[in-house]
Amino acid sequence: MAAPIALIQGASRGLGLEFCRHILKNKSLAGVIATCRNPDGATELRGLADQHPGRLTVLKLDVDQEEDIRGAAERVKESFGRLDLIVNSSAMLHPSGKGETSLRDVSAQGIISTLTTNTVGPLVMAKYFVPLLQKGGGGFGQQPAETAKQHSGIVVNITAKVGSIGDNGLGGWYSYRMSKAALNMATRNLSIELGRSRPKVVCVSLHPGTVNTDLSRPYHRNVPKEKLFSSEYSVYCLMSIIDTLSMEKTGKAYSWDGTELPW
Amino acid sequence: MAAPIALIQGASRGLGLEFCRHILKNKSLAGVIATCRNPDGATELRGLADQHPGRLTVLKLDVDQEEDIRGAAERVKESFGRLDLIVNSSAMLHPSGKGETSLRDVSAQGIISTLTTNTVGPLVMAKYFVPLLQKGGGGFGQQPAETAKQHSGIVVNITAKVGSIGDNGLGGWYSYRMSKAALNMATRNLSIELGRSRPKVVCVSLHPGTVNTDLSRPYHRNVPKEKLFSSEYSVYCLMSIIDTLSMEKTGKAYSWDGTELPW
Repeated sequence: MAAPIALIQGASRGLGLEFCRHILKNKSLAGVIATCRNPDGATELRGLADQHPGRLTVLKLDVDQEEDIRGAAERVKESFGRLDLIVNSSAMLHPSGKGETSLRDVSAQGIISTLTTNTVGPLVMAKYFVPLLQKGGGGFGQQPAETAKQHSGIVVNITAKVGSIGDNGLGGWYSYRMSKAALNMATRNLSIELGRSRPKVVCVSLHPGTVNTDLSRPYHRNVPKEKLFSSEYSVYCLMSIIDTLSMEKTGKAYSWDGTELPW
Repeated sequence: MAAPIALIQGASRGLGLEFCRHILKNKSLAGVIATCRNPDGATELRGLADQHPGRLTVLKLDVDQEEDIRGAAERVKESFGRLDLIVNSSAMLHPSGKGETSLRDVSAQGIISTLTTNTVGPLVMAKYFVPLLQKGGGGFGQQPAETAKQHSGIVVNITAKVGSIGDNGLGGWYSYRMSKAALNMATRNLSIELGRSRPKVVCVSLHPGTVNTDLSRPYHRNVPKEKLFSSEYSVYCLMSIIDTLSMEKTGKAYSWDGTELPW
């Protein structure tokens, strides 16, 4: 079987960077394609590439630009011809760096920017990369014995618990919450379309917990220490979930501990 | 008590136009503010205004333009000083007029346009008009005896059953489904913020059924006759729900028959 290949979108820092590190370290056969807006500034990714010669490819991809996504998919197709896993990782709370605390803070441009990066980006990624996942070898997740139920690839959209409409008891963070609710709909819709296709592709939303990254930094003082995860711990938990994914688990949102999140 | 005032956004045709007609006909005291992108072309609205002298005000408002919304709210404030009901009615399936049948049809620009009109517009409407609803007299819905539980106004966001993530078994229509899922999150978030405010404002999502309007026209041949509602029937059902709304029912999505929709 060919070595599995994972593509991590939004890989220059935070969860995305850690996904690259984790896979390179723990899946010794796997190749990793790391995409980010500005590869020249991604010194940590370059360091990782040096540590793992021949295993990490860094590609420029701005998830807000459909042409960038199309071009990157073209390059992956030429160089690899297939993929086994995509993780859509990049996200923003709001262009200002802070979620809206009330309706007064809402602006059309703020919501549209947040939706473009957090919601539209991952779906357009699926548009261009799913054909490569359909050529994948199913190198991630768990494969049942029955061939017809096997998957060739997996799409993971990083969601957030605050994107659960039913779980929302606090309010606020309009743009971010709306972007993740819409992303969950994209996951659900993708799982239906890709569950009908041959070969099949799994699609899930995963909630990483509250992770010590730039996105959540302004709010760390409000988070109890034991609930503020390191990227390492969060990605360890998420990869444990990914390792168990199959078509039976497609189309749902899971929290870092494996429990299903309500829509 | 002052005459109740309803603002119908997206009122030049379809459900919005019918909401104006219904309220003018059945709520003999109520005033109606009808907003649309192009009042000059809205001949049916002008006809309604002639039939109900002094009761219908037509205002230009393009829900895609925050400045338009701000300006219209300013004019309503000057002329009326308050509102009792807002119905966010305008929506598109997709800029092409057809929902995506598969991932191949997805485009970043198509999703962003759909989200801007269907999702961002209604939330920005709330931003500028909620202060007027907080000065309303609670002229729509049902008021409990206890003053602290009464509402001064109501926000209705027209959603769609296909915007329910949990109910989604068919897939397709990416942009439209995602826009309505995100709108439902906006409804939920608004209900929390406006349930804490004094005075309180009710916010719900309402699903009108499949209605014989321009939006659904390309799909009418697939809809059994008894399930394709006239605008009159749909608005009659939705107004029956609005007549029963109180703070106890805020923050949820209801179907035309009054049943609660899953998120």
